[in-house]
Amino acid sequence: MTKQDERTSGTSVIGSHKGYIVGSRPDLRVPVRRVHLTDGNAVTLYDTSGPGTDPAVETDVTRGLPPLRREWIAERRRDGTDAVTQLAYARRGEITPEMEFVALRENRPPEFVRDEIAAGRAVLPANVNHPETEPMIIGKNFLVKVNANIGNSAVTSSIEEEVEKMTWATRWGADTVMDLSTGRDIHTTREWVLRNSPVPVGTVPLYQALEKTGGRAEELTWEIYRDTVVEQAEQGVDYMTVHAGVLLRYVPLTARRKTGIVSRGGSIMAAWCLAHHRESFLYTHFEELCEIFRSYDITFSLGDGLRPGSIADANDEAQFAELHTLAELTRVAKSHDVQTMVEGPGHVPMHKIKENVDLQQELCEEAPFYTLGPLTTDIAPAYDHITSGIGAAMIAWWGTAMLCYVTPKEHLGLPDRDDVKTGVITYKIAAHAADLAKGHPGAQVWDDALSDARFEFRWEDQFNLSLDPDSARAFHDATLPAEPAKTAHFCSMCGPKFCSMKISQDIRADYGDRLGLADEAAAGMAEKSREFAESGNRVYLPVAD
Amino acid sequence: MTKQDERTSGTSVIGSHKGYIVGSRPDLRVPVRRVHLTDGNAVTLYDTSGPGTDPAVETDVTRGLPPLRREWIAERRRDGTDAVTQLAYARRGEITPEMEFVALRENRPPEFVRDEIAAGRAVLPANVNHPETEPMIIGKNFLVKVNANIGNSAVTSSIEEEVEKMTWATRWGADTVMDLSTGRDIHTTREWVLRNSPVPVGTVPLYQALEKTGGRAEELTWEIYRDTVVEQAEQGVDYMTVHAGVLLRYVPLTARRKTGIVSRGGSIMAAWCLAHHRESFLYTHFEELCEIFRSYDITFSLGDGLRPGSIADANDEAQFAELHTLAELTRVAKSHDVQTMVEGPGHVPMHKIKENVDLQQELCEEAPFYTLGPLTTDIAPAYDHITSGIGAAMIAWWGTAMLCYVTPKEHLGLPDRDDVKTGVITYKIAAHAADLAKGHPGAQVWDDALSDARFEFRWEDQFNLSLDPDSARAFHDATLPAEPAKTAHFCSMCGPKFCSMKISQDIRADYGDRLGLADEAAAGMAEKSREFAESGNRVYLPVAD
Repeated sequence: MTKQDERTSGTSVIGSHKGYIVGSRPDLRVPVRRVHLTDGNAVTLYDTSGPGTDPAVETDVTRGLPPLRREWIAERRRDGTDAVTQLAYARRGEITPEMEFVALRENRPPEFVRDEIAAGRAVLPANVNHPETEPMIIGKNFLVKVNANIGNSAVTSSIEEEVEKMTWATRWGADTVMDLSTGRDIHTTREWVLRNSPVPVGTVPLYQALEKTGGRAEELTWEIYRDTVVEQAEQGVDYMTVHAGVLLRYVPLTARRKTGIVSRGGSIMAAWCLAHHRESFLYTHFEELCEIFRSYDITFSLGDGLRPGSIADANDEAQFAELHTLAELTRVAKSHDVQTMVEGPGHVPMHKIKENVDLQQELCEEAPFYTLGPLTTDIAPAYDHITSGIGAAMIAWWGTAMLCYVTPKEHLGLPDRDDVKTGVITYKIAAHAADLAKGHPGAQVWDDALSDARFEFRWEDQFNLSLDPDSARAFHDATLPAEPAKTAHFCSMCGPKFCSMKISQDIRADYGDRLGLADEAAAGMAEKSREFAESGNRVYLPVAD
Repeated sequence: MTKQDERTSGTSVIGSHKGYIVGSRPDLRVPVRRVHLTDGNAVTLYDTSGPGTDPAVETDVTRGLPPLRREWIAERRRDGTDAVTQLAYARRGEITPEMEFVALRENRPPEFVRDEIAAGRAVLPANVNHPETEPMIIGKNFLVKVNANIGNSAVTSSIEEEVEKMTWATRWGADTVMDLSTGRDIHTTREWVLRNSPVPVGTVPLYQALEKTGGRAEELTWEIYRDTVVEQAEQGVDYMTVHAGVLLRYVPLTARRKTGIVSRGGSIMAAWCLAHHRESFLYTHFEELCEIFRSYDITFSLGDGLRPGSIADANDEAQFAELHTLAELTRVAKSHDVQTMVEGPGHVPMHKIKENVDLQQELCEEAPFYTLGPLTTDIAPAYDHITSGIGAAMIAWWGTAMLCYVTPKEHLGLPDRDDVKTGVITYKIAAHAADLAKGHPGAQVWDDALSDARFEFRWEDQFNLSLDPDSARAFHDATLPAEPAKTAHFCSMCGPKFCSMKISQDIRADYGDRLGLADEAAAGMAEKSREFAESGNRVYLPVAD
């Protein structure tokens, strides 16, 4: 991380300006990141960073973010209904302010948003007790989303660090965060995260429930679990991972695996099932859970407790047996008007990835798939953001709606600030690469704007349009720090004589007429080159010097 | 880079031991990297690092590496033939020591190696004047290979730096290096690189030819170019990129592109063609070039001078027009017994990647494809090792034989030591992920060994088996530096109570009988856990404490 990063956390992104698109009512203001280019154009980008990056808004971490959705929720409450889920409204044909918000955010018709939610192909996680969330949607017909995991552990880290990690993750583009805290102060950490999070927050309630039994899995009960869910629901958790598909009869299927059960929640429930030799209470009480989720509009994230933890275990019997149960539970949840997504692996070699998403989409009636990577090889600890970024891009292209990031510390340690940023940026790359491959409307505008800037040697525009402007600028300056180099018509890789972009521009300028181009741009470029050379700036050496 | 990295450059890799497999003659010794595990097993890995990582060999950069192949080349010279290419020998049915070497290296029959070379589906780049090379093979039916670009530029860097970068790149797994120097001392830099390189060295002779004309593309001639090729051939360059497919009539096809011509060689030749309004001398003199290549056994790398430089330009008319010409030239080169591979893009969105490799394989009679990435999006300068690592893994799965790495500095600056390492490791990940997806025999052994170590909490084995042991160890120690943590039965992510691997092992140990497992391993594990707990080491807290 550069010093610049440190300085700008929680303030506006250099080279970008916060903007808002106003909807059908004055309190419906959709944030965007606008990059104003030196050629007079502007590019509008999706913005997850919340009010913290708006210099006009004063934020105070001890007071939390403004409750953007409070009035919308109150209005609906006055209408009186106990199914307060976005799925219930969509099924009734209503377009909520939240749906309009995401429609503006994704540049899609509000009716389309409503219909995708009604069909269960998309979810809009929005607990009625988390009014601070800026509504966002997860579904394969929308932009691919990225989740960042934060959370302290019994071993290390503090509340302030976790809130800071959340702010940092959303600054770089995390669409949701999961608070996976397992240590002390689990309730308080979550409260701080929720009150300051502009994105939906997910949890795994089982972790806190296990804290309550002193870490003894076999002492878990439905009642302890239920009370934990209600506690978190009251705080405003938007979606919860529930490992209800780990059935007693599936546990033996994992015994001969290379890496057994690698999901924490999955292993806890497997231990419980075996200790009691009974079916999982998450499964037997699932309909009660649905009723709780329904009354807060909590979205299910049906956990894949039996996901493979190694290449050897990918797509095995245990994994797909559980997927069939998750499909059954998806139907049950939807019958209660509860929004539902389904989690996926894990460690999967490239040739076995597509089967995962195809099967999940078929069995689960196209409920949004939410995958962890997958990691495409086991051999690179310290680089698992990359082993998994490869799999993530591919599975998102093929239909995964949200990607759970993996940081460089995966398998090795707890991610710090740098790791969180690296994880988020890597996954934003995977998500955007998938948006391009899916032909998502408007996705390529961003690439085109950056490539135009690159070809025209507009270095500042190139930096400002980057996913990570700070690093792009710092890397450029590491080789050619001088200010004139930012306007030079070449870069440090090839030097002036060998610059293909420059030669290519010369071709266009000099041969524009011959090539049948009525090319004002080319003429302008030639003019600019001349000016630059005449200015006597010795950095510039034309090829035919 | 850690301090440890600095210290160990050019010495053995921590946790690994250099070994050799001896072939049918005593001077045929194939290097391997052996990782001895704490469970008594050993894993044997492909080793590109050369004699420098063998403590038994004293290397001196000023004297160069031992000329491993000198006697083999001399023996063949005594036989008397002017076609000294591996392709010519293979076509005559001969298995050269080089072929036997790669057969042992890749664990394939020597006859298979010979037949793949004879068919033109694989190349074994080995200039008769580069006897220091440890033979390696590039072909889709062998392990996917990785090239690292080094080379100074007019703007920055020194000879010593480039030699050090080459040593550093091969240490981390680069299978070939390309010296793309364009600045001063271009001949001397190359001499040092060649004499110290245990892997094949590639160049783009056009860069040096252009130096000779003072950077004036239009003053290039066939004679200047030819003399440059001979100069480099005499030094021992193993393969050369030749942009002979950039034909005069293709240049106008690039004029309306978003990013024109982004290949340096391509843009130089396009400028030449337009300046003279004549066909490229590389194309018109191609058969003469073949004769030179034939007499040294230089392998063609037919350059894709019109590759796309942005998502917008992928798979366009200019690109595929040139590919048809490269296919024609492949046939010409092979008719002269010259080994040939074909270069590919570039910037390509995921859904357009497969078409590239399918078309190249079809048109070029399965000649090895050698691609730069491709980058799957343009929006992430400073992370283009990742944008391209995604595309590289996919295209290698689908048949690309060698991947040219991209470093984090791509588009921004000249890579330093850290960037070279990051680029190589990222591409080794892509290559290995592809080997797995292609079902390459033996590829998964590495993943399995690492996953076994992970599941059994053999931390040191996990580190030593990593692509980058130094970083894996450093990342682990950053969270849990204490020595006992290296034998602890959990890690820093979840802490002892939540460790899924531990719970999973407990399940296997406690329920082994019930699950029908006659599981000695499980029993052993339970025993080990007990010992550890009894030892009073407070780091260890069993779940059911």
